[in-house]
Amino acid sequence: MAAIKTIGLLGGGVIGAGWAARCALNGYDVVVCDLDPEAERKIGEVLANARRAWSSMTLAPLGEAGTVRVVRSIEEAAAGADFIQESLPEQEAMKIALLGRADRVARPDVIIASSTSGLLPSRLQSGMAHPERFVVGHPFNPVYLMPLAEICGGAMTSAATKERAADFYRSLGMKPLLLRKEIDGFIADRLMEALWREALWLIHDDVATAAEIDDAIRFGPGLRWAFMGTFLIYRIAGGEPGMRHFMAQFGPALKWPWTKLMDVPELDDALLDKIVAQSDAQAGAASIRELERLRDDCLVAVLQGLRSRDFAAGSVLKAYEDGLHEKAHADEIASGDDRGQPLRLYAGQVEPGWIDYNGHMTESRYLQVFGVAADALCRLVGIDAAYLAAGLNYYTVETHMMHRREVAAGEKIHVTTQILGMDEKRLQLFHSLYRSRDEVLLASGEQMLLHVNTRESRACPVRDEIRPRLQRLADAHRGLPRPAAAGRGIALPSGTG
Amino acid sequence: MAAIKTIGLLGGGVIGAGWAARCALNGYDVVVCDLDPEAERKIGEVLANARRAWSSMTLAPLGEAGTVRVVRSIEEAAAGADFIQESLPEQEAMKIALLGRADRVARPDVIIASSTSGLLPSRLQSGMAHPERFVVGHPFNPVYLMPLAEICGGAMTSAATKERAADFYRSLGMKPLLLRKEIDGFIADRLMEALWREALWLIHDDVATAAEIDDAIRFGPGLRWAFMGTFLIYRIAGGEPGMRHFMAQFGPALKWPWTKLMDVPELDDALLDKIVAQSDAQAGAASIRELERLRDDCLVAVLQGLRSRDFAAGSVLKAYEDGLHEKAHADEIASGDDRGQPLRLYAGQVEPGWIDYNGHMTESRYLQVFGVAADALCRLVGIDAAYLAAGLNYYTVETHMMHRREVAAGEKIHVTTQILGMDEKRLQLFHSLYRSRDEVLLASGEQMLLHVNTRESRACPVRDEIRPRLQRLADAHRGLPRPAAAGRGIALPSGTG
Repeated sequence: MAAIKTIGLLGGGVIGAGWAARCALNGYDVVVCDLDPEAERKIGEVLANARRAWSSMTLAPLGEAGTVRVVRSIEEAAAGADFIQESLPEQEAMKIALLGRADRVARPDVIIASSTSGLLPSRLQSGMAHPERFVVGHPFNPVYLMPLAEICGGAMTSAATKERAADFYRSLGMKPLLLRKEIDGFIADRLMEALWREALWLIHDDVATAAEIDDAIRFGPGLRWAFMGTFLIYRIAGGEPGMRHFMAQFGPALKWPWTKLMDVPELDDALLDKIVAQSDAQAGAASIRELERLRDDCLVAVLQGLRSRDFAAGSVLKAYEDGLHEKAHADEIASGDDRGQPLRLYAGQVEPGWIDYNGHMTESRYLQVFGVAADALCRLVGIDAAYLAAGLNYYTVETHMMHRREVAAGEKIHVTTQILGMDEKRLQLFHSLYRSRDEVLLASGEQMLLHVNTRESRACPVRDEIRPRLQRLADAHRGLPRPAAAGRGIALPSGTG
Repeated sequence: MAAIKTIGLLGGGVIGAGWAARCALNGYDVVVCDLDPEAERKIGEVLANARRAWSSMTLAPLGEAGTVRVVRSIEEAAAGADFIQESLPEQEAMKIALLGRADRVARPDVIIASSTSGLLPSRLQSGMAHPERFVVGHPFNPVYLMPLAEICGGAMTSAATKERAADFYRSLGMKPLLLRKEIDGFIADRLMEALWREALWLIHDDVATAAEIDDAIRFGPGLRWAFMGTFLIYRIAGGEPGMRHFMAQFGPALKWPWTKLMDVPELDDALLDKIVAQSDAQAGAASIRELERLRDDCLVAVLQGLRSRDFAAGSVLKAYEDGLHEKAHADEIASGDDRGQPLRLYAGQVEPGWIDYNGHMTESRYLQVFGVAADALCRLVGIDAAYLAAGLNYYTVETHMMHRREVAAGEKIHVTTQILGMDEKRLQLFHSLYRSRDEVLLASGEQMLLHVNTRESRACPVRDEIRPRLQRLADAHRGLPRPAAAGRGIALPSGTG
C-alpha cells in the first residue's frame, strides 16, 4: 500500500474546501473536483480562514503545506489520488453515480470515503466494483477545526478500510469515532436532528425566536457539551448516589411533554441496567467530586477562552467583572486614604491553584497580587472605565521583587502600597506582601508605571482630573521611611560567574 | 422595596447548594432550608468547589463573601429573606405546598423564584396568597458557573417580578433569558430532552454506548454549541447564499429517519419565512466571512482552553501537537546546548486566560513564563524528581523585569535565557521574552536564584553532580554581551516625587 501523499476530493463546497484546507495544512497535496466557476475563489477563502485559525491555534511544527489544485472532472481528481474523500450534495443517486466513476479510475488499494451526514454506506457503495474500500468518514463544519470524524462502514466495507481511514484522519489531528452499526444519520447528526426538530417546533409555535433558542443553548447546556456529553453531565448532576439515582429522579420526566418527541423507549430494568453499567464504565475510577472539579476546570477554561473573544458567555463574564471593578472603586473612594500610611489595597487568601510543586505560592502569583494592588490604586484616584475607554492608563514598565519567605495555601495575605515618587508621566510604587496572621513580610515589589495613550502605545501626561488625587497621596507618603530594597539592582559579588 | 441582602433557599441539594455558593460569593447572606442531616457537609463541599473555580476564573474584586446557614424549616428560611429561591425535587404537589408555606411568612414584596426544570409556573403559584411575586428562575448545573437563568412567569406573575428577578440574577453574573410563553420544559430543557430521548434510543438499540454518544457530542457539535446555537451555526454552514439556501438544502432531511423524532412541523412558506427573517435579524450586519471568523476564533479559544486541561478536544489537539513536536525533534537533539548562545527553554502561546482587561497578557504571566524557563534550565542540568525529593532546589530570591511591548491572546512567544553568573549557592539568569513571528522583544527578566535545603529553608551549596553542567553553560555564556538592563535598579530622576 502506497503512503498517502495526494488527496482526491470530490466536491469543493463548504465541506470539501474544509477538507482541502485541513489536508494541505498537514502537508498533503490536494486535487479537488468542482464545477462551480467560482470554486477557486471560494476554496481560497476557506484556505485563508483555515491558515488564520491554525496560526493562532497551534505552535506545533507543521512542516510545509501541500498544494491545492482545482479540476473539473471526477476522473482527474480520483485517478492519481492515494485517498479519496467525497463531499457532494446529499443526493443519494448522484453520490452513487459519481462514487462509481471514481471507483473505476482509482487504484484498488485507495480508500474512497464519503462525507455524507447520514446516507447509508451500504447504498452508497452499491455501484462500486471495489465496495470493500468504501467507508463513510463524516466530518463537521468547519472541517479544518472540528476534531470529530464518524466512521461508518456498509455491509461490504472491510475492517481494514475502517482502520486505515481512522489512521488517516488521526494524521490530520482528528478524532475518529467508529460506529458499531450502520444507521441513518449516524450518531451526532441524529442527536443534532432531534434538537433541531424541537427547535423548529419552538419557532413554529412562537415560543421563542432563533436568537432566543441559540441563547438557551450557548449560555446553558452548550457550554458543558463542549467537553462532556449528556451522560457524564447527568451523572455528575445526580451527585453522590450515581447514575441509577439520577435515572430514578429524572426517568419519570420521559413521560412528560418536555419536548414534542414523545416516542420514547420503555425505561425498563434491562435498559436501566445497560445505562448504569455504561455510565459506570465511562466514569471509571473517578469520584463524583473529581468529576465535578474536572467539569468546573473545563467550564472555567471555556469561559476564559470566550472572555478573551468578548463573545457569548465570555461577554457575560466580562461585563460582570467590569461591574465589580466599578463597585469596588466606588467603595474605595468613600473610605478616603490620604492618612500618611501605606495604602492597604489588597487582602486575600493564597488560593489552592496558586501553589507550585513545592507546596508554596508560586512566584508569578506574588506579581499578580502586586498588580491587583496597583490596579486598585489607579481606580482609587479615579481611573475608571470611561478613562480607560478614552485610551488612557498606567502600564507597568519595570518591576523589582524580593522574595523573603514562602507561604502556603489557605494563608491570609495582604499588600500595603507606598508611593515613592511621581511626575507627570511616571508613578513609582513600593508594595509589601504580608502574611496577615503575624504580619511577617513575605515579599516586596517595586514598580515603575508609565502613563500611556494605549491606542498609540506612547507615554503621555496623566490627565488633570487624576493628577491632584495622586499627588495628594504621594505628598502624604513623603514622610514615610524609604524601604531598604527600593532602587536596588540584582548583583552577584564581583569575581564570580 | 428593601435592597436584597439575605437569600432564603428552599432545598440544599446540588442545585440549592450551587445557588448558596453563587450568592455567598457575591456577598449575599444565605439561609438554606434542608432536612438532610448531612446538608452542612454537602453544601460545604459545593462551596469549596465554587471557591476553587472562581479563584481561577476571575481576578475581579469580589468583596467579602456572605454567610451560609442551614436551617430545618421552610418558615425559618423564608421569613427573613429578601429573595427566595426554591430548589426542591421535581414533585409538583410538594412544591405547591412548600411554596405556599414560604408565601405565608415572606414579606409581600419579596420575590419567590423556583428552580424547576420544567413544571408550569401557573400551577406552582396556584396555592399562593401573593402569586404575582412568583416566577420560575431556572438555572443550570453547576449553578455557580453556568450563566443561563430562564425566566418564565405564570398567568398571575407580574411584569415587575420578572424584571426584578432578572436584575438579581444579573447581579450574580448570570444571563437571564425571558420566555415569551409558558411551556413545559421551557426552552433549554426541551432541546436537551429531545437530544436525551434520541440518546436513550441509541443505547436501547445498541447503536452506541453512553461514552460513544458523549464523544459524538464533545468532539463534534458540542464544541460549537459552547458559543453559537444551532441556528447561527447552520446559517454559517449554508455559506454565502444564507439561511433560505441552507433550508432548501437540508429541509428535505426533515422527512428522513435521521432521528426517532418523526413528528415535525410542516416546512411551509410561512414557517420558512419566519425562520429566514429571524436568522437575518440574528446575524445583523455581519457577513458570512465575518461570522466564520468569529466562529473560528471562538472554536480556537475553546480548544486552547481545553488543551490547558488536557481534556476532551483539548487532549486531541495536545496529542496531535506532541506527535508533530516529536517528529520535528530528532534533528534538534544533535545540535547540543553549550553553543555559546542563550538557551531557548520556553516556547508557547499567550493563553486566553492570561489576558487582562486591556486585552493584553497580564504582567504576572510574564513572570510565569520566566519561571517556566528557569525550571527548564534546572531540569536541563539534571535537577530531577530525585534531587527535589532529597530536599534540594533553587529558589528565586530576587527578580527585575522590564516591560517593553504588549502582546495579545494567541500570539506565539518564546524565551531565551542567558546565565550571567554563578557561585556555589547562587545562580544569576537573564531571560528575554520575544514575540515569535517577528522576534520583537516584549520583556526581560533578571533573576537571582539561591540553592536551598528546602526542608530547613536555608541556603546550601549545589551538589557536585549538578554544578559542572551548570558551570559549562555559564562558561559558554561568558562571551555573550551583558544585557543593558542587567543589574539595573528602579529610579525616578532626583527632585521628583
